[in-house]
Amino acid sequence: MSEEAPTPTTGQAEFLAALIDAGHVFETGVPGVYGHGAAYERVRVKLESLISEAAAEDGAAKLKFPPVVPRVNLEDNGYVAKFPQLAASLFGFDGSEADAIKQGRIAAAHGDWSSFQGQTDLMMLPAACYPVYPAVAAAGPLAAGGAFIDMEGTWVFRHEPSYDPARRQAFRQHELVRIGAPEDVVAWRMAWAQRGLDMFGDLGLASSLESANDPFFGRQGLLLAANQSAEQLKFELVVPIASPEPTACASFNYHLDQFAGIYGLSFADGSPVHTACVGFGQDRIVLALMKAHGLEPERWPSNVRTLVWD
Amino acid sequence: MSEEAPTPTTGQAEFLAALIDAGHVFETGVPGVYGHGAAYERVRVKLESLISEAAAEDGAAKLKFPPVVPRVNLEDNGYVAKFPQLAASLFGFDGSEADAIKQGRIAAAHGDWSSFQGQTDLMMLPAACYPVYPAVAAAGPLAAGGAFIDMEGTWVFRHEPSYDPARRQAFRQHELVRIGAPEDVVAWRMAWAQRGLDMFGDLGLASSLESANDPFFGRQGLLLAANQSAEQLKFELVVPIASPEPTACASFNYHLDQFAGIYGLSFADGSPVHTACVGFGQDRIVLALMKAHGLEPERWPSNVRTLVWD
Repeated sequence: MSEEAPTPTTGQAEFLAALIDAGHVFETGVPGVYGHGAAYERVRVKLESLISEAAAEDGAAKLKFPPVVPRVNLEDNGYVAKFPQLAASLFGFDGSEADAIKQGRIAAAHGDWSSFQGQTDLMMLPAACYPVYPAVAAAGPLAAGGAFIDMEGTWVFRHEPSYDPARRQAFRQHELVRIGAPEDVVAWRMAWAQRGLDMFGDLGLASSLESANDPFFGRQGLLLAANQSAEQLKFELVVPIASPEPTACASFNYHLDQFAGIYGLSFADGSPVHTACVGFGQDRIVLALMKAHGLEPERWPSNVRTLVWD
Repeated sequence: MSEEAPTPTTGQAEFLAALIDAGHVFETGVPGVYGHGAAYERVRVKLESLISEAAAEDGAAKLKFPPVVPRVNLEDNGYVAKFPQLAASLFGFDGSEADAIKQGRIAAAHGDWSSFQGQTDLMMLPAACYPVYPAVAAAGPLAAGGAFIDMEGTWVFRHEPSYDPARRQAFRQHELVRIGAPEDVVAWRMAWAQRGLDMFGDLGLASSLESANDPFFGRQGLLLAANQSAEQLKFELVVPIASPEPTACASFNYHLDQFAGIYGLSFADGSPVHTACVGFGQDRIVLALMKAHGLEPERWPSNVRTLVWD
């Protein structure tokens, strides 16, 4: 299949080259899939602690999931239908010894060995929160007050090759999930949007909160996007990084009763359950910090260093 | 394709059920793909620090990679040919709007939509060290003394559905890589095997160091396995967990000049370069600790708590 990435802007190409030069980013040969050096990771981990400590003060429970998710999960929640261009599924080999030898020979010559591969029960996880809803539902009716889960930094994947250093195929998303009464969930989302704005301000990042929509596929997706915008289900904190337009670095999403309905989340007394999630793009925030303050964290403003370096 | 997992032994089934009951492990519906609770993750992160601090004292540089790897990497290093049964490749959608609608409808009904998927440039990373060799090679000739890289805990994937809680499809591997002169690499591997034995002893785990071989595929693989054993290229630290046989929890692998040759690793003076890697199975070690000391880390022996809990 075509794996072409759009030509980067000069700003994107220069920032990526500078990140590689500084030892923060290591190329793998596939655009949007990078390794990272020690300083980059140190900032990312400190940022994670900053968010997790705030969540823990509000009683969040930690729960960590792998970068793959059962295929049935993304079939049930509509991801495959709404985002076919971003979804990636895992295929594996299930043939004879003779087939394995053929596949191996074609692979060694970098030919097309896709016909030897069959679809498995797994897909790449495209959003950190997806496994949480069925896991919480499996534990039975919610306790009074609902649930607050901290996923920490989780590897997610979206199939969109790009040379914009802030648009990755594989990246770390720190998601927080709130499951509870509609008014609690709505208030929680807005409190975290304000917290995000404050945090970005403390980090010296010029951010603004904007109403947004997901990149639903095709013409049918235009209606989904328009509804999402009209109902103000998605806000984003956008920050200038390396693109002409500022880049979304955090999102604040209200799902109404969508996930509660799909996975059977309920209170014992039958009162309504809504859900919301907050997603911080860890890699994008680290990149925004490096764009704003330079490539040497030890020379960042001291108040920023205190938060995410020292 | 068939995704059947072998029937677990009573010991495996009971230990998995106890881990779920204690909130350490969360099922996703696919065997070998689990979420983890806060206490489990706390032990895993402390264990990671223990190993990384020892590596840092010897001058290791940290480098962190995502859970996917370019397909060409596993075609070049022979993984697809040698381990077709474990390899997983990423497929994506590249069709028309009409195709997307068809795929979405079949997916919503949990039917077979594999014919709409094409192979991408990426595969699941099956061993944490694989991206390191090309990344180090890209930086040019090695400095005198070679290189020592700490990958920290990295998500890896092997396609082998199982109900043994210690045999995962997605799991965290903490790998250390040494690239240098043959005698340095050989000495480094044996020093870490001793360090691993000592560390497992300090953690109260009954372990032994054994000569081992990789699970190469098919009858052709028998010869590869026999060679690997005869040349003593792989040692494992095995620890009793939930299976009749003890489980490999760390491996110490000498690659001779295999990866140096494939990726063009070299010293400026042309003297020979060999590589070795040490892999600690983070999830297996946490499980071994829970098997040995019980499911409540706060009640583990105080010397063990000091190392991986407090």
